[in-house]
Amino acid sequence: MRILVSNDDGIDSPGIAALAEALKEIGEVTVIAPRTEQSAVGHAITMKLPLRVTEYFKNGEFFGYAVDGTPADCVKMGIRNLMETPPDIVVSGINHGSNTAINIIYSGTVSAAREAAINDVPAIAMSVISHDAKDFRYAQKLAKKLTLEVVEKGLESGTILNVNVPNVPENEIKGVIVTKQGKSKWDDIYEGRMDPYGKQYYWLTGKLDDVDFTPDTDQHAVKNNFASVTPIHFDLTDYKTYDRIKDWNIEEIYELKESK
Amino acid sequence: MRILVSNDDGIDSPGIAALAEALKEIGEVTVIAPRTEQSAVGHAITMKLPLRVTEYFKNGEFFGYAVDGTPADCVKMGIRNLMETPPDIVVSGINHGSNTAINIIYSGTVSAAREAAINDVPAIAMSVISHDAKDFRYAQKLAKKLTLEVVEKGLESGTILNVNVPNVPENEIKGVIVTKQGKSKWDDIYEGRMDPYGKQYYWLTGKLDDVDFTPDTDQHAVKNNFASVTPIHFDLTDYKTYDRIKDWNIEEIYELKESK
Repeated sequence: MRILVSNDDGIDSPGIAALAEALKEIGEVTVIAPRTEQSAVGHAITMKLPLRVTEYFKNGEFFGYAVDGTPADCVKMGIRNLMETPPDIVVSGINHGSNTAINIIYSGTVSAAREAAINDVPAIAMSVISHDAKDFRYAQKLAKKLTLEVVEKGLESGTILNVNVPNVPENEIKGVIVTKQGKSKWDDIYEGRMDPYGKQYYWLTGKLDDVDFTPDTDQHAVKNNFASVTPIHFDLTDYKTYDRIKDWNIEEIYELKESK
Repeated sequence: MRILVSNDDGIDSPGIAALAEALKEIGEVTVIAPRTEQSAVGHAITMKLPLRVTEYFKNGEFFGYAVDGTPADCVKMGIRNLMETPPDIVVSGINHGSNTAINIIYSGTVSAAREAAINDVPAIAMSVISHDAKDFRYAQKLAKKLTLEVVEKGLESGTILNVNVPNVPENEIKGVIVTKQGKSKWDDIYEGRMDPYGKQYYWLTGKLDDVDFTPDTDQHAVKNNFASVTPIHFDLTDYKTYDRIKDWNIEEIYELKESK
């Protein structure tokens, strides 16, 4: 099995080292990851700047390819350019921080997996839900298990698994639940400051508010010490609204070109 | 009606000028847009760098606020910081280029609208499907019409309208269709080049391949000279797969913590 490993925390993060180490037990791993941290880049890709790729060594040994781009760039480039043939699966992470609920939209970790799915390669995004995560052992085991499962059983084209693991000792994790994306909101604050030259600038801060405590969501699972597996896709059509707004007075809109 | 206008082509683009001009006829417009082009940034937000805001003037008149960030930054900052109270609607565009099918994932134009929806403000993303778009008259009328419609009738919380207008003379546009997000693929190529110092670098190029010719999709509509209105949302849960993978041997996964 050939596995492409990427992330958004950068090629030098402990999380990607833990992921590569675990997956080497079940397949041939190629690491292609951003040279620097790319958190919250969403599904950005680099089109107006050239990309550079360098070999990255850890403790004197070749570890993988560092790309001076986004997570999606790394995966696109891996599949299209750096690997001779596309991998059997892409696994992204292990992210240091939660990618549940609304964070899925901003996540670079998830975008790496989504880019794989766009290129018809099945993919998994792995996160441990704290920026201070240090113990990746449960996440490592789950990554191996799910990688084998996905390669054996397949996923619908365009679907990825988004996995979040609680940041607690392994023996406190109660198990794994298949979940839905929860709802949540960032209570954003832009903190205004003055630079040394008397010009104002702003830092984005804020905290995540849960607004959804239904038991089958990703965030509910991790709060209750379950690992969460959410299948997500990139058909963004809102079918409910699609049905509803067909009733809007489209006829009138048809006539726009005759009106002023 | 108070309208926040943003985009991803930058505050100096003709498309946002056309949009602001049209919407001023129906409401009070505040323009908050990226200082520089931010195409294909996806839903990136700026957390690790400070943001600066400057007043932007056109022909000696105040036009709006330029933010040195992403489209999502502009909308978040507008709603949370720059506007005294949230606007009634956010309209993003008019983008120079198509945001149909898979492009929705990469689009900065769409991310501005999505960020509004995340903050419970209804939103519309407007695009004319060519990078060379110069005639925005039909798109202007449609933007006005849909803005009035959305503010009057509302949208489901979390839903936005993604609108694409053919790049043809107004009298060749056949009307407006409510559509679904189509399927398409980028046939990506990384063109390798050598810099003046003998180091290799890569440019992303490629072309978009349609792989979906069902008649109710966004790309089918614009190809046939209809304007396309697609309702999209950010619940990415793949419910079909959710139902299917509940059958996976989760019990075995539950036991992971006991296994080695």
